[in-house]
Amino acid sequence: MSQIELGYTADYHVHLRQGEMMELVTPTVREGGVSIAYIMPNLTPPLTDIERAVQYKNDLQKLAPKTTFLLTFYLSKLLTPEIVAKAADEGVIRGIKCYPAGVTTNSQAGVDPNDFTAFYPIFKVMQEKGLVLNLHGEKPSVHNESGDAGEDIHVLNAEPKFLPALFKLHKDFPELKIVLEHCTSKAAIDAIYEINKDLKEGEEPKVVASITAHHLYLTIDDWAGNPVNFCKPVAKLPEDRRSLLNAAVSGKPFFFFGSDSAPHDLSKKSTHIGVCAGVYTQQYAIAYVAEIFDKIGKIEMLKDFVSTFGNAFYNMDESKLVCKDKCVLVKQDVEIPEIMTFDASNLKIAPFRPVEKLSWSTKWV
Amino acid sequence: MSQIELGYTADYHVHLRQGEMMELVTPTVREGGVSIAYIMPNLTPPLTDIERAVQYKNDLQKLAPKTTFLLTFYLSKLLTPEIVAKAADEGVIRGIKCYPAGVTTNSQAGVDPNDFTAFYPIFKVMQEKGLVLNLHGEKPSVHNESGDAGEDIHVLNAEPKFLPALFKLHKDFPELKIVLEHCTSKAAIDAIYEINKDLKEGEEPKVVASITAHHLYLTIDDWAGNPVNFCKPVAKLPEDRRSLLNAAVSGKPFFFFGSDSAPHDLSKKSTHIGVCAGVYTQQYAIAYVAEIFDKIGKIEMLKDFVSTFGNAFYNMDESKLVCKDKCVLVKQDVEIPEIMTFDASNLKIAPFRPVEKLSWSTKWV
Repeated sequence: MSQIELGYTADYHVHLRQGEMMELVTPTVREGGVSIAYIMPNLTPPLTDIERAVQYKNDLQKLAPKTTFLLTFYLSKLLTPEIVAKAADEGVIRGIKCYPAGVTTNSQAGVDPNDFTAFYPIFKVMQEKGLVLNLHGEKPSVHNESGDAGEDIHVLNAEPKFLPALFKLHKDFPELKIVLEHCTSKAAIDAIYEINKDLKEGEEPKVVASITAHHLYLTIDDWAGNPVNFCKPVAKLPEDRRSLLNAAVSGKPFFFFGSDSAPHDLSKKSTHIGVCAGVYTQQYAIAYVAEIFDKIGKIEMLKDFVSTFGNAFYNMDESKLVCKDKCVLVKQDVEIPEIMTFDASNLKIAPFRPVEKLSWSTKWV
Repeated sequence: MSQIELGYTADYHVHLRQGEMMELVTPTVREGGVSIAYIMPNLTPPLTDIERAVQYKNDLQKLAPKTTFLLTFYLSKLLTPEIVAKAADEGVIRGIKCYPAGVTTNSQAGVDPNDFTAFYPIFKVMQEKGLVLNLHGEKPSVHNESGDAGEDIHVLNAEPKFLPALFKLHKDFPELKIVLEHCTSKAAIDAIYEINKDLKEGEEPKVVASITAHHLYLTIDDWAGNPVNFCKPVAKLPEDRRSLLNAAVSGKPFFFFGSDSAPHDLSKKSTHIGVCAGVYTQQYAIAYVAEIFDKIGKIEMLKDFVSTFGNAFYNMDESKLVCKDKCVLVKQDVEIPEIMTFDASNLKIAPFRPVEKLSWSTKWV
């Protein structure tokens, strides 16, 4: 196969930032082969009101007229059930992103994942309105000095330790659509299988996981000493990576693509202290996934993963698109630059897999 | 206690490099409160002959006339039993460092830890001459794409996976003095306890472990996103750190100090790709250890750890010292700079725990 029609490709986890970075990065959604982009709300300040969300969407749309943008609110105490209901009714947002406080870029305003009950009135409205709850599934790190009491939580077990909270949320809101975002561990994949074990053919899953492109490639050894590959949740062990890759090509509708592409200026990645978490994949988003699916002989599963399953979960159909171009995967080499630079900006971005070659590209028809 | 006499303090794992870096760093051994420095041979090219070792020691001695330097060879195929015997007889070297190929800075010339038998003639001579074998105890990473065959080896299990090789070496050379250098895992600590379980009071251990200052502080969360804390072996989980700290203050003669202080120019640490492994602690070596011993109420165990036990293992006595000054720990605050700069050099070094305050200093009497 030298060409594969992928339909309305969707990236259900995208960071487009603000200001100059937003201007540079927003057009790369389409360049990376993505038609529908689900936008994260961890702006400064976090996106928690209708007016700013409308404005933000307009800003993005101007920068990329052919990309369909779906927006999210940032779960915080600033949200009320009334605001959420109104935003849903007006079609301003498609979901709400939940960040545990302090685990990643601009997550200071996040919530305590040990107790979600304060947000139950909001989850109730979300369930009624069909909004999606997008979970950053990590517990914040806890380091017990003595080890005598309590449990250690660190970057490797932060996701597995979060999973009981996922099960509880699903139990308390069985009709609420939940995405465990950018999952990184075999434990998380197993949990999603467990929750969906009685799902019947054709039935829609309520609890799913998104998987990034970079976590299909990376393990701990890749970010040890290479901040370009450092992200949250961190890439984990080889067995975790294999589990993610198997899930991505499984043909199960509860695993689909969300790149978590997270641009930072190079100065925030090339530093000996306080490297910003995030891997930038937007420019070649679909090609990265195609490359590794192809490598294990599963390229025929690509369309489900980057198009069909995510769109089904989010009830996306043609009528909601700003542009009906379809993405086509083409067998054509592309070399990833060492650093992405831009005319008329001093910002630089270190892309994922610099100076590597990808053997697939995308075009629009 | 506001002052503690520590005797002839020793750092049994020191990197002093070459050229300009060597000139800058060598004097900091004494500034950091260390009298005896055991010098690593991972130079370019690796230190494998008598003439260069003598020259290197002379160079160091000129830079730091009051520091006692003990040198090591780099275990490689360039060494012969004859060279090793001669170097031992002439007192040129005190031990030989074994690096698995490819695991850390300048380790390309290292050995295959899956099979040491090619070096058994050298180990036999070392055993006879009382030379110490210093092991970098990690297996090189192996990433099985499919996971169907073989075992995964990554930065987290590389040390535990090495331990069977340690047991075998000890079994095959029961009188050979072996140090498992800069150990980082509970598994390694447990292995050293196991090997020494029948050691009687006053009896000298044959197999010991050195422990760095920084591994008493760090876990994986500290180097995730902070290349200043990235080293090999990497700092591991909270339970591992607790195990190391308990070993360091245990009063067992088979655990003693080796800083593995590893200076790199800041440009090699502040980069988004290919960060050099190594934490620089030399300037405050004893103070870092004192700080954390004190924090857990074990300052009285410091002298054993940084002086008595290492010197006993290496048979160091007063007659072998170039200077008989003793180190005294003084209760006096010192603030660690953000970056260490030097007159007459463009090199910069990022120290461990930048801008933190230590509450102990050292002086010489």
